[in-house]
Amino acid sequence: MSSTISDALEKFEAPGQIRTYYQRFSVPYEYPVLFTRDIFSPGNTALRECITSNGGPNKPRVTFFIDSGVEQQMPDIARRISNYALAHTDAFDLVHPVECVDGGEICKNDTTIVETLQRRLVDAGIDRHSYVVGIGGGAVLDLIGYVAATTHRGIRHIRVPTTVLAQNDSGVGVKNGVNAFSVKNLLGTFQPPSAVINDSAFIDVLPGRDKRAGMAEAVKVALIRDGEFFKWLEDQAGALALFQSEPLDRLIRHCAMLHMRQIAQGGDPFERGNARPLDFGHWAAHKLETLSNYTLRHGEAVAIGIALDTRYSVISGLLPEGDDIRVRRLLEQLGFTLWHEAAGEKNASGGLKVLDGLEEFRAHLGGELSITLLSAIGVGVEVHTMDPKLIVEAIDWLREEMPA
Amino acid sequence: MSSTISDALEKFEAPGQIRTYYQRFSVPYEYPVLFTRDIFSPGNTALRECITSNGGPNKPRVTFFIDSGVEQQMPDIARRISNYALAHTDAFDLVHPVECVDGGEICKNDTTIVETLQRRLVDAGIDRHSYVVGIGGGAVLDLIGYVAATTHRGIRHIRVPTTVLAQNDSGVGVKNGVNAFSVKNLLGTFQPPSAVINDSAFIDVLPGRDKRAGMAEAVKVALIRDGEFFKWLEDQAGALALFQSEPLDRLIRHCAMLHMRQIAQGGDPFERGNARPLDFGHWAAHKLETLSNYTLRHGEAVAIGIALDTRYSVISGLLPEGDDIRVRRLLEQLGFTLWHEAAGEKNASGGLKVLDGLEEFRAHLGGELSITLLSAIGVGVEVHTMDPKLIVEAIDWLREEMPA
Repeated sequence: MSSTISDALEKFEAPGQIRTYYQRFSVPYEYPVLFTRDIFSPGNTALRECITSNGGPNKPRVTFFIDSGVEQQMPDIARRISNYALAHTDAFDLVHPVECVDGGEICKNDTTIVETLQRRLVDAGIDRHSYVVGIGGGAVLDLIGYVAATTHRGIRHIRVPTTVLAQNDSGVGVKNGVNAFSVKNLLGTFQPPSAVINDSAFIDVLPGRDKRAGMAEAVKVALIRDGEFFKWLEDQAGALALFQSEPLDRLIRHCAMLHMRQIAQGGDPFERGNARPLDFGHWAAHKLETLSNYTLRHGEAVAIGIALDTRYSVISGLLPEGDDIRVRRLLEQLGFTLWHEAAGEKNASGGLKVLDGLEEFRAHLGGELSITLLSAIGVGVEVHTMDPKLIVEAIDWLREEMPA
Repeated sequence: MSSTISDALEKFEAPGQIRTYYQRFSVPYEYPVLFTRDIFSPGNTALRECITSNGGPNKPRVTFFIDSGVEQQMPDIARRISNYALAHTDAFDLVHPVECVDGGEICKNDTTIVETLQRRLVDAGIDRHSYVVGIGGGAVLDLIGYVAATTHRGIRHIRVPTTVLAQNDSGVGVKNGVNAFSVKNLLGTFQPPSAVINDSAFIDVLPGRDKRAGMAEAVKVALIRDGEFFKWLEDQAGALALFQSEPLDRLIRHCAMLHMRQIAQGGDPFERGNARPLDFGHWAAHKLETLSNYTLRHGEAVAIGIALDTRYSVISGLLPEGDDIRVRRLLEQLGFTLWHEAAGEKNASGGLKVLDGLEEFRAHLGGELSITLLSAIGVGVEVHTMDPKLIVEAIDWLREEMPA
């Protein structure tokens, strides 16, 4: 027997009956995603505005954590942050020296760092109305986001992604996480940030390999959601391969917008169902990253995964012939190598190891296997099985020379 | 300059401009709160229904964690759970032996237990579509809730609260947490459960002291939200003091409903603002618990805090004279002792230690102090300052003999 809460309040129920009440509510989220340049020039108000937008009678307390990779590229960044805080001391208080965190996946494997950073926040007197600003690549932002989400049941968190991959993909998303017990992202939550600030100056100082790797996610989101964007990427491929700032800026911004739109309008921002449209190409990519001992960057593995699943879409009859060539050509023009020996590694019984990635992908999500394939360039479709024989064929196609 | 995501998709922006896009979405939550008896009789379908209600092609994997206090009162509970799982093996798989967790605040202070339990879930192959069932008092449910919320970015979690306090208050709420670095609930998240099952059979076996302690939250929620309920509590005070099942059942159910309504309709389920209407009487209660070295139960401390803030409401002119006597009489009729020497403890400079609880309460929430007082029985009002002199007067009133 089902009742509303109001029913229950109107009359006391006799005990002994079984009754079910439904608790229903929605939690609204709203946060700004800013695109700017030189966030820590004293005259740039982007960060100040993000910190003060919530009002409140007390000056917010703020801490900064920066990726060691960013500090290598911009050795004066800690000093610039301090100066920025000094110039905006009427708006917020810097309550702890800027702290550096080792960048890259390594920070997500360190089992003690979460506790260390949580303690740092407690020592600095950070409360739920304070701000934690994380500046770095995807891994550092995943770590800082997890620390902020779990301390005091959620401290306000501002993300400043510094790589192409983080600015156009994970940095504008709602997930955080660290690795544990040898499982990637085993610990984590869904927790939207208070604000995201994408600063193009961080992109300028990136190594070329990192600039390129981030473009894979743009190709991905174009393929599943935006055929016009795919054409634009084809037009700009030469300039993008040279890392020219203007098209790269546009790529980042447009890709970030598509990613945001998928989260806001895709109907499942906290991923309760099985579908993962944004994970196109990722079942193989995750496995290739591991098989290569992370010598493949995430974006480089995603490029291979995209090419693989595009070819699979063609040979399984979903996607017209020729579209696979088009995708492969774009990725290669951008500078991606679409073959890695990890894709050909075999296990003791002669099967391709990469095929295990399919079951691992299903197990990670739990429930039913759900894979995004393509029915057109710009249109993703969901399937629940893949034929291993066709996957092997698609892998053979990757290994072959690119058709002229 | 502010734009919508759609604007951004229509035209590529020239780089260099500062642009702000707003990401907006809502996350809907819906979960059943069931009232039943003997949840683990094989014929009781409550738990089975909660586990199977999400559909999905695969049989869910389920683990159970039980409070050692429950096991003491019901030594055969692990066997009964196994038998229940056996009787419902068509609906779900029990994938790990039922595990016992030390009950009471001690489990929230153990710095290793979170990791131990997370590892247990990984070893048992629990994924995001699996269920973790926590059975116990508020502390154990807070711990299990935190473990479930952080593993795989949130495993489905069913709460089976076993005390009056947990069944009518925290167990139907949306918070979890553990203590760390000597700070209560320092680590935690807001994470609604998948279902809550309140089983009255657990209440029957509770020690009287625990039955009584949980009634304090009913008096609290009646005072801030429901004058009719307060009158009913006065009518039933004699029977409740004897722990008679029927009125106690009704008290629990009605109080749980009011708590649920506050969360669903109070406008701030994840407590982003400063207001904490459900924390009426709690600033002093938290401090008294600590000062008493936890010899005071949470509910016992809340009863003192309620009497204190009701008296304060009268002497600060918010609440009519006499209502304080009414509240004090009800609490004393229910069997609460409204004085504890901790309330009179003084620091080196002669001030009452309990007064520090006010600043600690503010610091815990962050931002502005926000305290709920009463303007009538059934009507809470929010204030932002309290006068220490009047608090001392109110404490003196507690120390005095109850007026005839």
